Amino acid sequence: MVKVEVLAIGKELLIGKTLNSNAYWIGGRLARMGSMIRRVSTVDDDLEEISLAVTEALQRKPDFLITIGGLGPTPDDMTLKGLGRALGAKLTTSKEALNMVKEHYVQIGRRGIELTPARRKMAQLPKGATPVHNPLGTAPGVRTTRGRTVIYSLPGVPREMRAIFVNSVEKAIRRKVGKLFWMKIVMDVEDIFESTLAPMIKQALKENPAAYIKSHPKGVEKGVSKIELDIMTVSAEKTRAGAASELARLLRSRITRDGGVVRNERTTSSKSD
Amino acid sequence: MVKVEVLAIGKELLIGKTLNSNAYWIGGRLARMGSMIRRVSTVDDDLEEISLAVTEALQRKPDFLITIGGLGPTPDDMTLKGLGRALGAKLTTSKEALNMVKEHYVQIGRRGIELTPARRKMAQLPKGATPVHNPLGTAPGVRTTRGRTVIYSLPGVPREMRAIFVNSVEKAIRRKVGKLFWMKIVMDVEDIFESTLAPMIKQALKENPAAYIKSHPKGVEKGVSKIELDIMTVSAEKTRAGAASELARLLRSRITRDGGVVRNERTTSSKSD
Repeated sequence: MVKVEVLAIGKELLIGKTLNSNAYWIGGRLARMGSMIRRVSTVDDDLEEISLAVTEALQRKPDFLITIGGLGPTPDDMTLKGLGRALGAKLTTSKEALNMVKEHYVQIGRRGIELTPARRKMAQLPKGATPVHNPLGTAPGVRTTRGRTVIYSLPGVPREMRAIFVNSVEKAIRRKVGKLFWMKIVMDVEDIFESTLAPMIKQALKENPAAYIKSHPKGVEKGVSKIELDIMTVSAEKTRAGAASELARLLRSRITRDGGVVRNERTTSSKSD
Repeated sequence: MVKVEVLAIGKELLIGKTLNSNAYWIGGRLARMGSMIRRVSTVDDDLEEISLAVTEALQRKPDFLITIGGLGPTPDDMTLKGLGRALGAKLTTSKEALNMVKEHYVQIGRRGIELTPARRKMAQLPKGATPVHNPLGTAPGVRTTRGRTVIYSLPGVPREMRAIFVNSVEKAIRRKVGKLFWMKIVMDVEDIFESTLAPMIKQALKENPAAYIKSHPKGVEKGVSKIELDIMTVSAEKTRAGAASELARLLRSRITRDGGVVRNERTTSSKSD
């Protein structure tokens, strides 16, 4: 399985100011390919913390490491410095990145704006890195590699992050993941304890070890849980990806036999293009 | 500064199904004490992943490690097994925890319910750990220690997590953090580039290195960013915590001098109880 790690950088994510919706969004994009994020780490705008988190992530040898945030012009934007420190690569001004920064100012009608140190900072990349075009903002994304890991650094502004992700990162991940088929079935289960469901799930997983079956308690009414049950199967072979359907049928019959009620079953699956 | 790490466990957080609102909520609670989370890690319901993430977190020697999720009766609930593996501590049934599980069933009117393996599982703690009363659910929280680190394991259901956090975890953190005063000022800035703001922030931080000043771009209109500027100061001395006010005055005058507009300034501060 292709390993993707996300490293989100920004104090706002640690002090209850901003929900980490960027990692959430990337998680959804990967899931729709049949893949998933392996780990999300969130750290402060702090050189030591960033550098340590990158070093630790690289030790886990992911195929892709996606850093988010900290590419802007202000002093707290220090992702590339932290990345450079972790890689042992000095920051140098990239002509290509500087042209992207200039071009952005031209596009917003500010041709010839002074390239102050703060503006130049957005074009200072770790040696060996290449800039990635940001269609919606000033700071380019950055692509670099270390061993087997491709590292993408994306801005934290969601629309800019998403644009660069879709244009560049996702394509690279998709090539590595290949074509995967998946089927996902979600059902609402009532009038049964999660602890009564547990051995049924255990049995179903024994019969189909590659499946993903997970119960999410959604609150309690009259002492009995309302539970959302998720069943998902993924495979490179289209027919095997459909196993979720048989699993759902099995679980439904066992739940009903034990007095549970299954409502509102939804099935989604990968587009078979 | 007291170091708090959060380890959130659950596939739903990695596949774009559930936003990590638990870590966000804890971040807000700590911020209101003048403290903050140092790192959030999110991993899959996978024994190896959980055990590795706990081991790595302990190597960073936080004062508190809070794990969230994976305490329930189903096979994917394996936080305590992963924690036990990281600590080299076998799981054993805790009488105290088992009584809590039984007591919960009594309270919801199911006295004498059969204690199946799935239900007993919620009372199997790493050796040396103690259960923490969960007023709103079946699975108790768990408290254990390793070296300087106090580890709390909380359920992932938000209302249960919050109840145990407020009743138990927060009190322990607050004792360690002590009384901190803080002041936070947020202003909306317009008609100025973030890259123009950057040297002003740099200068202000040079004059007050302990302050937290951060700009958040909020979109672009007519080629110029709308920016939210956050200024925060924290101190054990009440008078020093008020430094944000002087910093805001300074930044406001510099921004205005350079043609920027400052709107809608909000001040919040710690309760001085």
